[in-house]
Amino acid sequence: SKTLKIAALAGDGIGPEVMREAIKVLRAVEKKFALTINITEAPVGWAGIDAAGKALPDATLKLCKESDCILFGSVGLPDRDPTIPKEERPERAALLRLRKEFSLFANLRPVKLPKELSHACPLAKERQGTGIDILVVRELTGGMYFGQPKKTEQISAGASKATILRAIDTMVYTTPEIERIAHVAFKTARLRRKKVTSIDKANVLENGVLWRDVVTTVAKEYPDVQLEHMFVDNGAMQLVLKPTQFDVMLCENMFGDILSDEAAALGGSLGMLPSASLGSAGSTGQFGFYEPAGGTAPDIAGKNLANPIAQILSTALMLRYTFNLNDAALAIENAVGKVISDGLRTGDIFSASETNARKVGTTEMGDAIAAAI
Amino acid sequence: SKTLKIAALAGDGIGPEVMREAIKVLRAVEKKFALTINITEAPVGWAGIDAAGKALPDATLKLCKESDCILFGSVGLPDRDPTIPKEERPERAALLRLRKEFSLFANLRPVKLPKELSHACPLAKERQGTGIDILVVRELTGGMYFGQPKKTEQISAGASKATILRAIDTMVYTTPEIERIAHVAFKTARLRRKKVTSIDKANVLENGVLWRDVVTTVAKEYPDVQLEHMFVDNGAMQLVLKPTQFDVMLCENMFGDILSDEAAALGGSLGMLPSASLGSAGSTGQFGFYEPAGGTAPDIAGKNLANPIAQILSTALMLRYTFNLNDAALAIENAVGKVISDGLRTGDIFSASETNARKVGTTEMGDAIAAAI
Ligand SMILES: CC(C)[C@H](C(=O)O)[C@@H](O)C(=O)O
Ligand SMILES: CC(C)[C@H](C(=O)O)[C@@H](O)C(=O)O
Repeated sequence: SKTLKIAALAGDGIGPEVMREAIKVLRAVEKKFALTINITEAPVGWAGIDAAGKALPDATLKLCKESDCILFGSVGLPDRDPTIPKEERPERAALLRLRKEFSLFANLRPVKLPKELSHACPLAKERQGTGIDILVVRELTGGMYFGQPKKTEQISAGASKATILRAIDTMVYTTPEIERIAHVAFKTARLRRKKVTSIDKANVLENGVLWRDVVTTVAKEYPDVQLEHMFVDNGAMQLVLKPTQFDVMLCENMFGDILSDEAAALGGSLGMLPSASLGSAGSTGQFGFYEPAGGTAPDIAGKNLANPIAQILSTALMLRYTFNLNDAALAIENAVGKVISDGLRTGDIFSASETNARKVGTTEMGDAIAAAI
Repeated sequence: SKTLKIAALAGDGIGPEVMREAIKVLRAVEKKFALTINITEAPVGWAGIDAAGKALPDATLKLCKESDCILFGSVGLPDRDPTIPKEERPERAALLRLRKEFSLFANLRPVKLPKELSHACPLAKERQGTGIDILVVRELTGGMYFGQPKKTEQISAGASKATILRAIDTMVYTTPEIERIAHVAFKTARLRRKKVTSIDKANVLENGVLWRDVVTTVAKEYPDVQLEHMFVDNGAMQLVLKPTQFDVMLCENMFGDILSDEAAALGGSLGMLPSASLGSAGSTGQFGFYEPAGGTAPDIAGKNLANPIAQILSTALMLRYTFNLNDAALAIENAVGKVISDGLRTGDIFSASETNARKVGTTEMGDAIAAAI
């Protein structure tokens, strides 16, 4: 069978230590399913700047291009050198650059609160209903993230001679960009509870009106899927008031950034949530970028405190979407489910009120999941 | 003493019935404080379209210009005539138009969960701490709401001859626009717990970088106020995870729209939350626009079910900010506090689990508050 070629970019903060556990679990999967997995690690983010002077070193980018997919940790350390130009900072120079370079337009962010972790959800029990299970489908290569013009300029200073600056960002979407992400939303909804809530701001934005029109048209190809439109401000409110009403939430880039983080807060812990960023489907699976929902968490980095589950579940999405290895993906997801129901908890999901819970560190959690494969 | 001239624009949906109760309460205040209040009502929104063919009839705008302030209900009915051009719909043609016309750049949205309504808050009890008490200060006349270009255009259709549209919205802020709203945030923070959390997306937007720079500079004039910066996605998450960390949240227009609705969800009910939109301070108080946080709620309109408290508390903000009548404002706020602790509840804040609660309608709630003045 073919070799799976994975570029593993751990990045900064807790990135390296959660990546270590994810690779441990991947090796267990490799053995169990008799796969050949070729994992090559390379620096990115501040680690890239330190190693090769760039957040995305040329060698790292080359490796990504030669691989089937990217398993990503996280990048960005708010306290590192504030004088470095914004275009060269890890967020823009590595993360946004990779999204654009590989046309990763479809970002899937599942939020699922395991019933054992109900206590970790900030909502009152009765709001959790029979369980929160939301998939945010976020457009990832358009909108205000990349639209031009995007600049800061000096404008006429007036009589007072004070320097006045004007910042401009541009939100742009075209019909085909909205169509392709809408198809992703409707297709994934078919594998779930068959409901799409499309988020926009059609009462204010030109983009909102176009978004709503195009999504409505695409929906006609999926008569079995229920479509609902919701203004983004109401969406932010409804997520808190009644999250169980949502199945798939379809969002443009910036709204998806905001609402997926809000939804993630309902999932008990960011440390549990994986994500997948996909390009167009090729014939043999698709190139993908897999990363945990949380950030670099510098405050707990290097202390064996981070929850590695988000990174581990990201490898499951990788096996499923890029390599079409659904059994292997399920093996990982089931192993995670098992250790959770066995009561293993990193600090972020631990509650003293749980009688059978046992607090563990990053490596112990990774070991247990690898053992459960 | 001088006559208070108020333009009362009730608008659509539940607007007229909650406005009626607010006026009832204002008349009680007029008597108690020996004021002379001149209230003139005029149509706006679909009511304006029905009465005079425009969401903001000329006569209504003229009345507003001749008044000291606008007491606003709400506008917009999603199910009314979808063929009317978007520029003529109530949201853009009345609400956004009035904001621009009167340069109402500072939108104050207080969210306070009364301890008696803890059950109405969607968060688990332990997340509510000793009480949620947040003031969202939202910039209201800049950003993506008004930035140019703002248009939808047809772009070259390619070989397939399909029509491809491109929508463009522009986010623009200048130094002085950010400065003036930052001053509002720091000044109001001084009257509260002296903390400002400034929301931006400085890791992606040019506007975010400028926003952060300008706010940091303005903060130097308020050394007694603590300033913290937070990315908008993290803000959306932190509001759910730990709302008690926030005092004043300072936001640009679109982020403020989203986060203030999310914060409102934590306040128990939209039906409880007033808002004030202010222009520049003049010598005798300032022109202001006062409206409830909730919308037209067409599903419950005309059924005596709506909670009038948000509209009533909006009149308190009006008395405070436009007329400098703090005692009269407090009288209203205390009267509302009294009927809540007496157990009166409209449907949105009623819970069968409260032993002393009594479910009442819109008019009964208004009567009780007026009586308590
Ligand atoms: C780090 C930042 C650029 C990024 C984004 O805004 O997309 C992050 O918040 C995310 O959601 O992946
Ligand atoms: C109705 C709409 C235009 C408005 C806005 O987006 O500002 C509303 O959501 C609000 O927050 O006042």
